[in-house]
Amino acid sequence: MHLEQIQSPEQLKKIPVEELPRLAEEIRQFLMESLSVTGGHLASNLGVVELTLALHYLFDSPRDRILWDVGHQSYVHKILTGRRHLFPSLRQYEGLCGFPKRNESEHDIWETGHSSTSLSAAMGMAVARDLQGEKHRVIPVIGDGALTGGMALEALNHIGNEQRNMTVILNDNEMSISPNVGALHNYLGKLRTHKHYHKVKEEVEYFLKKIPSVGGAFASAAERIKDSLKFLVVSGVLFEKLGFTYLGPVNGHDLDELMECLRQADQTSGPVLVHVVTVKGKGYLPAEKDAETFHGVGKNYKLEAGSQKPKPVGGPVKYSKVFGNILIRLAKEDPRVVGVTPAMLGGSGMNEFAARFPERSYDVGIAEQHAATFSAGLATQGMKPVLAIYSTFLQRGYDQLIHDIARQKLNVMLAVDRAGFVGADGETHQGVYDIAYMRCIPNMAIMMPKDENEFQHMLYTAYRYDEGPIAVRFPRGTGLGVKMDEELKELPLGKAEVLREGGDVALMAFGTMVPAAMDAADQLVREGIRAKVINARFVKPLDTELLDRLYREQLPIVTIEEGAESGGMGSAVLEYYAEQEAYDMVVKRMGVPDVFVEHGGVGDQRAEAGLTPERIVHTARTVVPRQRRRA
Amino acid sequence: MHLEQIQSPEQLKKIPVEELPRLAEEIRQFLMESLSVTGGHLASNLGVVELTLALHYLFDSPRDRILWDVGHQSYVHKILTGRRHLFPSLRQYEGLCGFPKRNESEHDIWETGHSSTSLSAAMGMAVARDLQGEKHRVIPVIGDGALTGGMALEALNHIGNEQRNMTVILNDNEMSISPNVGALHNYLGKLRTHKHYHKVKEEVEYFLKKIPSVGGAFASAAERIKDSLKFLVVSGVLFEKLGFTYLGPVNGHDLDELMECLRQADQTSGPVLVHVVTVKGKGYLPAEKDAETFHGVGKNYKLEAGSQKPKPVGGPVKYSKVFGNILIRLAKEDPRVVGVTPAMLGGSGMNEFAARFPERSYDVGIAEQHAATFSAGLATQGMKPVLAIYSTFLQRGYDQLIHDIARQKLNVMLAVDRAGFVGADGETHQGVYDIAYMRCIPNMAIMMPKDENEFQHMLYTAYRYDEGPIAVRFPRGTGLGVKMDEELKELPLGKAEVLREGGDVALMAFGTMVPAAMDAADQLVREGIRAKVINARFVKPLDTELLDRLYREQLPIVTIEEGAESGGMGSAVLEYYAEQEAYDMVVKRMGVPDVFVEHGGVGDQRAEAGLTPERIVHTARTVVPRQRRRA
Repeated sequence: MHLEQIQSPEQLKKIPVEELPRLAEEIRQFLMESLSVTGGHLASNLGVVELTLALHYLFDSPRDRILWDVGHQSYVHKILTGRRHLFPSLRQYEGLCGFPKRNESEHDIWETGHSSTSLSAAMGMAVARDLQGEKHRVIPVIGDGALTGGMALEALNHIGNEQRNMTVILNDNEMSISPNVGALHNYLGKLRTHKHYHKVKEEVEYFLKKIPSVGGAFASAAERIKDSLKFLVVSGVLFEKLGFTYLGPVNGHDLDELMECLRQADQTSGPVLVHVVTVKGKGYLPAEKDAETFHGVGKNYKLEAGSQKPKPVGGPVKYSKVFGNILIRLAKEDPRVVGVTPAMLGGSGMNEFAARFPERSYDVGIAEQHAATFSAGLATQGMKPVLAIYSTFLQRGYDQLIHDIARQKLNVMLAVDRAGFVGADGETHQGVYDIAYMRCIPNMAIMMPKDENEFQHMLYTAYRYDEGPIAVRFPRGTGLGVKMDEELKELPLGKAEVLREGGDVALMAFGTMVPAAMDAADQLVREGIRAKVINARFVKPLDTELLDRLYREQLPIVTIEEGAESGGMGSAVLEYYAEQEAYDMVVKRMGVPDVFVEHGGVGDQRAEAGLTPERIVHTARTVVPRQRRRA
Repeated sequence: MHLEQIQSPEQLKKIPVEELPRLAEEIRQFLMESLSVTGGHLASNLGVVELTLALHYLFDSPRDRILWDVGHQSYVHKILTGRRHLFPSLRQYEGLCGFPKRNESEHDIWETGHSSTSLSAAMGMAVARDLQGEKHRVIPVIGDGALTGGMALEALNHIGNEQRNMTVILNDNEMSISPNVGALHNYLGKLRTHKHYHKVKEEVEYFLKKIPSVGGAFASAAERIKDSLKFLVVSGVLFEKLGFTYLGPVNGHDLDELMECLRQADQTSGPVLVHVVTVKGKGYLPAEKDAETFHGVGKNYKLEAGSQKPKPVGGPVKYSKVFGNILIRLAKEDPRVVGVTPAMLGGSGMNEFAARFPERSYDVGIAEQHAATFSAGLATQGMKPVLAIYSTFLQRGYDQLIHDIARQKLNVMLAVDRAGFVGADGETHQGVYDIAYMRCIPNMAIMMPKDENEFQHMLYTAYRYDEGPIAVRFPRGTGLGVKMDEELKELPLGKAEVLREGGDVALMAFGTMVPAAMDAADQLVREGIRAKVINARFVKPLDTELLDRLYREQLPIVTIEEGAESGGMGSAVLEYYAEQEAYDMVVKRMGVPDVFVEHGGVGDQRAEAGLTPERIVHTARTVVPRQRRRA
């Protein structure tokens, strides 16, 4: 049977086991070819081909609950559950989602985009199963990186305590363990998956009981390990102590070994951890060699050459690149500057900074809560911490932002990346809540630049600011290609910029929406409507002087922002006028409506939200009194 | 020298060491007498008397950085740093704060109210110290409960990895370890604090290397441990694996032993964990016997009798009690109902529920992120999870609320306790952001009752709701003493209640502010102003029909809520009218202004925020046109 004939796990199960390796190769070929056109998470999916085959071959989805943590490793699962034909639309507007999606398939039982959530959800499913008197399996699949996130550790503690049946698959693809320890693991692994595992274990324990201290046993080995918690995790010690039965490590590309181990797990009661070692990018040499680059590939990468589409030369610079450059520039001049990121060193443009200032660069791993409060601790000592964090992940450090940073009025500079729509990653990663959730926090200052040149000045402004936390939010992707000033300048706090004068309507745009507002103004002038275009720059503090002036001029205002309409910049403007008892002021708000916007191009997403020049024109028309139009 | 003469750690250091135990007794006596008048966290502070003395005797605050996690254990520290005379004002308005407070003393270098933050902050301080070329000590003091919070585990991982000098004091006062294991600990502790510790350790390790497997060594012991992660923590295994030197356990009430161990820690490079075992309530028998009750005492408890002020008989019922009762009632009728709480079983009124439905009651410990997503997991399986969580702690589960619960539109019912001002706990615990931070999330429904009877109907309404997550926010403390209906009824979704008709102004109040609005209406009528009083019930969805009617009647509106003004209910009303192009509508918003409101009585805090009947009257006057008044 060939891959195209497999429309469900039932059909997969009819294949003789010895044919599975051939199927694995077919899947790899399909992934490479399909993703070379659409882009997507190549390396991680090449790594889980055999694991996914084994899970669907042995177990009974959707009756058995298989959960994919950081769901970008779910492509093979999607292929085997009848969605192979949808791959040409992967991560595109109204196409196949790059993460598990409940409304796509009954086999997608838990949606994941952010990491480390699967264990908590699996625990909920296991408790529900037992309360309902059901018997099915619950099988979360979690990567070694995701497992070190605080919420995964909280979940481990609970799962170990409850002792319910659950098979946790640890997909360990990072290989950061030193060979010595790896050898010990292999030995332990063989010992444990052996038929007489339990008997052997008892004997070993009996023997160990006669020894005075065992607490420090692994210490000398541990000293050789850089990432210590990961060592704990992959060595099995952590799991055993937490009440798990630890099985493995097992070669995640050897189907026989894998299935034997999974069967063994299935026969063990209580929580079991199966430690599966996989190679990211397995089967595609360029990706195996450089899994980081091939973690996600862009559209139309060259399959044979193993090369990504060459970056355009001389095109607009990426916002994250500008951030990285300014961080280096500030750090060169000021020894107080420290960069902090939760596992997004590359994504945040901090690689070069980290290389040049290793002692002032802190990638703390998937640990947003810690990253925020670690920054706060630095700030208490007069340092200038710069926390680089995606808007969607700052949600994980929200309490720390309120309780530790803002409440203590600490000078933490937040570089809030991927603010606004994020495109192909879709609804799990949209950075559209930060304006609302930060605006209600006392002591916060919030800004967003209209282009990459203003961005560098805003970063400098934030650096110079010393009245508490200040956030510069900025979009994913590249700037507009504007000229970059040599000299950095401090922008006046809480002051907007009037980009274009006009006496009929004021288009007040925040950050990414400024170009759309300028476009709209061009279109409006053809209709005889003269629009003043305001680059808001700050949402907090607001430019109240300018708002007062607009009121005196009785200019109707259209506010435009790439953020949730509820509680956003438009609401701030409404609030201000209400406070001033300027009740007759006309303010129309444009922003992201109160729905989760799915994956697609950023353009599609803006169009869905109505954040286009055309919609701005339309909205402006509705607020300009007829008699004021000059057409 | 007597306690009253000690105004600073310098003066403490002049006391001969043999006089410290007497001083400890003086401190205990002072704490018991002082707190018997003001109330406060008695048991935890009685437990750290010797520990605090030892730290300030040996080390050099504020040069050395001592951080108190969950800062309610900082009273002794406050006494020793010149604030003994302020204790009569403890936790009162404009009085001594119950937590460390930077503007109170140079010795308070880190503010804590929420738990588990000290390690991240300490790491920031240690990195800053090393970058600045300084040499002082960094000493976070953290409880065993706080240490299992996800962010503390994230921090441990980072600290162990970095190997900077730091002495973490684990204040272990829970005694949940079985005697056997405790004995092993004592043995290990003696071994480790011994002069030849390192040599002995090497020998043991050499011996252990000859044994085939050590991974499962503690397993049989671990099986006897209910709280497995705590076992890992207090057994020292976790710390050793993470790169810490583990010292202890040491008796936290034996000053000699304690100081010897702290000196030893001070001579060890890299991160050290000192495991200090203390007894909550030490030295005061009633508190030692029942540390939970004496965790916090109310005002005027009887010192000799060891009894708290008797609860008033027949007085208004607590909101948390109503919640507990309804939870039981729903659980009796519906096997799908499951209660979840992050370490607030008692505070959330769930003790009786837990006793009656142990298999459906989940106290997951200090683990807000897990609590939220565990609830989400339950909901995917058709269960009816009820997540009981304080407003201020829901900030820790914010991403999980957005990404896991709301985005997947799961039927999780949130009982958001301690919403609004919380009184003596003050600014770290104010529940005033939840309206703004929840309102921007799609799929959310948010309500708040005007009294305890409506509260039970709202809980029932939330239970019956199956369109996604729904939050019932409710205040700390007791209800109004209203009659409780026997039968539970479902309130219409998104519908407000008009409590009183009036044609001059509409007072639209949310939850706790309804009685104040009624009061204000009484006062206004004497001035000839007839106020319509609206019990909003829902902030999302809004009662737009009612808002339309108010617009048609051209009634000016005053919105009143115990929540941040930025992005709150008032903003929702403004947003709605702006959407409807009802630009001439008069809406005045009253809420919590954009500052952190400190500790005191809830009455003081409401007064500071201007949320009183008098201020409502004043505000109403400003929006009622003169010609409409009938005076």
